[in-house]
Amino acid sequence: MTDIRIDGATRLYGIVGHPIGQVKSPEVFSDLFAAGEINAVMLPLHVLPDRFDAAMAALMGLANLDGLLVTVPYKPQAARFADRLGPTASRIAAVNALRREHDGTWSGDMFDGVGFVRAFERKGCELRGRRVALFGAGGAGSAIGCELAAAGVASLAIIDPRTERAAALADTLRRAFTGCRVGAADAVPHNADMIVNASTVGMRDGDGLPGEVGELASDALVGDVIVSEEPTALIRHAIRHGCRYVIGREMIAGQAEAIMSFFAVARR
Amino acid sequence: MTDIRIDGATRLYGIVGHPIGQVKSPEVFSDLFAAGEINAVMLPLHVLPDRFDAAMAALMGLANLDGLLVTVPYKPQAARFADRLGPTASRIAAVNALRREHDGTWSGDMFDGVGFVRAFERKGCELRGRRVALFGAGGAGSAIGCELAAAGVASLAIIDPRTERAAALADTLRRAFTGCRVGAADAVPHNADMIVNASTVGMRDGDGLPGEVGELASDALVGDVIVSEEPTALIRHAIRHGCRYVIGREMIAGQAEAIMSFFAVARR
Repeated sequence: MTDIRIDGATRLYGIVGHPIGQVKSPEVFSDLFAAGEINAVMLPLHVLPDRFDAAMAALMGLANLDGLLVTVPYKPQAARFADRLGPTASRIAAVNALRREHDGTWSGDMFDGVGFVRAFERKGCELRGRRVALFGAGGAGSAIGCELAAAGVASLAIIDPRTERAAALADTLRRAFTGCRVGAADAVPHNADMIVNASTVGMRDGDGLPGEVGELASDALVGDVIVSEEPTALIRHAIRHGCRYVIGREMIAGQAEAIMSFFAVARR
Repeated sequence: MTDIRIDGATRLYGIVGHPIGQVKSPEVFSDLFAAGEINAVMLPLHVLPDRFDAAMAALMGLANLDGLLVTVPYKPQAARFADRLGPTASRIAAVNALRREHDGTWSGDMFDGVGFVRAFERKGCELRGRRVALFGAGGAGSAIGCELAAAGVASLAIIDPRTERAAALADTLRRAFTGCRVGAADAVPHNADMIVNASTVGMRDGDGLPGEVGELASDALVGDVIVSEEPTALIRHAIRHGCRYVIGREMIAGQAEAIMSFFAVARR
């Protein structure tokens, strides 16, 4: 791997969050920049909640800062710092990446779902026509639901204990994607052939499945956003049934690749 | 040399300036941090003049940023962002380094002259009692004049084509250091046994001496702030007369060491 160098000409990128110590992006993207012989680094930027607005304005005003990633809890608030939003970001009103354009304006988009879809595509899995059960209608679930609908899945059943959140996401997606049957649900539909966990279930040791999943046909697909050392209960369930699956780390790799392309457009 | 790594726990330091591409501090300090196994980097921070106040407030508000260096043109303006100033900084009302203390307040000091004095000390040169001719009463000259007076030189003749600037610096130093004879001058005094160039003469190829210097005794000392590939005319003059001397690069190395110590105090 190429060494990271920092000099007066180094271009800056940062990830804004609170807390910040846990983020992996500084390593992942600084290494990607170095590997691509781009004189740039990705920095952890720990912004406290009462300073968010001033910090964003000032960071975006640094003449040698070209892009920002945004993580918990700032993805919704960061959207209003973009002069224009990509399709997913504008549908779910949240961004996780912002880039400075040549004219000095800023574009924002949301890549949390893109990495998920890319990871399935890399494994040769066809998403078009799938009948999806999606656990979790928060930030990750919203982004993933949006990308799955855009990828042409036939239906999306959105399951979240906060039923008003599931209903709101279903409404948003139904309006945006008329070719996809979308609804809030309280259980996995019997004909589902793709199970996606975008809830936090699986984060803690000893967590089980995000809900009742039942038996799976071997041609069903399973995806889990949880990044963990050991496979989650849902991924173990997929393995037991011979299903193809995508884990959190694969989603993150797919997302990093998509974000690098997003940043690269502005450097051309 | 140890490799630079950046992760979520990396502490940030930055150098604020305009322009920024020419600064050497990001490399010098990032390497010093890595060599000391400190998980920290020094970043170039390009702040445009109309954004300086907002940028300083926001940068100092980042919870993982522990210190700032300040370069042209911001050293005077940056002083008011410190809750307390070190002795040199308060005398000349300018800072080139700020650090966050454990209680969240900020301390600032000016190290532009310290590196110069340290570099002479490292060579075993006694400054006490010297009769100094100092060319240049700008930022560098002010800081160096202050440190030379603090180091116990007997007299300081300050020479600057902007005579009001020379007179103002002489006034400041005379008040602060009653044991040192300080005055503005229009030529090197005949009894001078130390010549210091803190003007910009020597920056451009073909520049000559900063003023009439005359013959030097071999026990005279010569210092030049100019950082250049080839020795400046003043340094060549010193070499011809067998004098000991300090060049710009040695001053910078001495300053980096002093600033690392300044930052380290807050990390203890």
